[in-house]
Amino acid sequence: MPIILFYGPKMEKEKRKELIKSFTESTGRLAGVDPRAVIVKMTESDPAYVGVGGELLEERQQRQRKPSS
Amino acid sequence: MPIILFYGPKMEKEKRKELIKSFTESTGRLAGVDPRAVIVKMTESDPAYVGVGGELLEERQQRQRKPSS
Amino acid sequence: MPIILFYGPKMEKEKRKELIKSFTESTGRLAGVDPRAVIVKMTESDPAYVGVGGELLEERQQRQRKPSS
Amino acid sequence: MPIILFYGPKMEKEKRKELIKSFTESTGRLAGVDPRAVIVKMTESDPAYVGVGGELLEERQQRQRKPSS
Amino acid sequence: MPIILFYGPKMEKEKRKELIKSFTESTGRLAGVDPRAVIVKMTESDPAYVGVGGELLEERQQRQRKPSS
Amino acid sequence: MPIILFYGPKMEKEKRKELIKSFTESTGRLAGVDPRAVIVKMTESDPAYVGVGGELLEERQQRQRKPSS
Repeated sequence: MPIILFYGPKMEKEKRKELIKSFTESTGRLAGVDPRAVIVKMTESDPAYVGVGGELLEERQQRQRKPSS
Repeated sequence: MPIILFYGPKMEKEKRKELIKSFTESTGRLAGVDPRAVIVKMTESDPAYVGVGGELLEERQQRQRKPSS
Repeated sequence: MPIILFYGPKMEKEKRKELIKSFTESTGRLAGVDPRAVIVKMTESDPAYVGVGGELLEERQQRQRKPSS
Repeated sequence: MPIILFYGPKMEKEKRKELIKSFTESTGRLAGVDPRAVIVKMTESDPAYVGVGGELLEERQQRQRKPSS
Repeated sequence: MPIILFYGPKMEKEKRKELIKSFTESTGRLAGVDPRAVIVKMTESDPAYVGVGGELLEERQQRQRKPSS
Repeated sequence: MPIILFYGPKMEKEKRKELIKSFTESTGRLAGVDPRAVIVKMTESDPAYVGVGGELLEERQQRQRKPSS
């Protein structure tokens, strides 16, 4: 009964479906379990609620998008 | 200080309250802890963000509701 | 596909089985899901790795067991 | 690659930023890791979805705010 | 900064490495993130601590291995 | 009832105690909650079970320790 909790960025439904398919297939193949038993739970993380290296991910992303002048 | 993280379907408040009461009572009785210390955190899982056996739960539920013809 | 993550004290197998049965039954009854789909994952928390109110649970428990004199 | 999952009350962005900074700094100093690798994920818990001692946190808070008469 | 928490069966190190590689590659490709930022945390679940459908996974597995006579 | 789940490296008990104290103090101060209600659960992650950027953390650490020649 493998459980996969995924915390990541916002994704379109088609991509989410592909990711679930891929995670499930790899788990079935490598963990030796029936892929029908694999459960994946996806959570979209808001960059305003994630910290990376002490900084809000939202601010890091804004800085990276801004062209230096 | 038992912690119970519950990921499940959307539920009405009265049902949530009963579930919390039941989880807390069982934990107190069987885990030998003071039930006042039990914390339950409920998260409603959107079926469009859950995969079961490689398939989106949302699509599985739609298929199961559709009468076969 | 409800998932229940339980973090609590060390328990004997018979108590764990009863707790799983009770959580599963309550979830089936109150969340309106097939109890066969309920997954419970239990983790024993070592009191030397848990903090409550800023204090190690292990030390709080030792203090509570000691008779005051 | 320390990961910190924080489940707590609603907070303003400035407070969230300070909390992330503080968690990251303490982790770097005490866990002997590069603070740049610390990831913090904050989740706001709705008191209508949290149980404490078998009671909905929402109801406990309402009761505590009400002046006894 | 996607985080993947995987709870599954005991696996050899080579399989774990392949699973991590596969999860990371799929996440980079489908979630539109830098694969170098993907973190995977694997936890081996002891079947004596997992419940499925109200039954201990350990007992379900023993039953399934036993030939019916 | 803030809950903090910390996944990080092996730490001595004194450091764990300081980290718990620091997390609890910051949470009380910044989240506006009673610090006595803060729960911290620490889990030591084995580098052989963590992937970073598609690579086992264990192997990354070994490579970083080896002097290049």
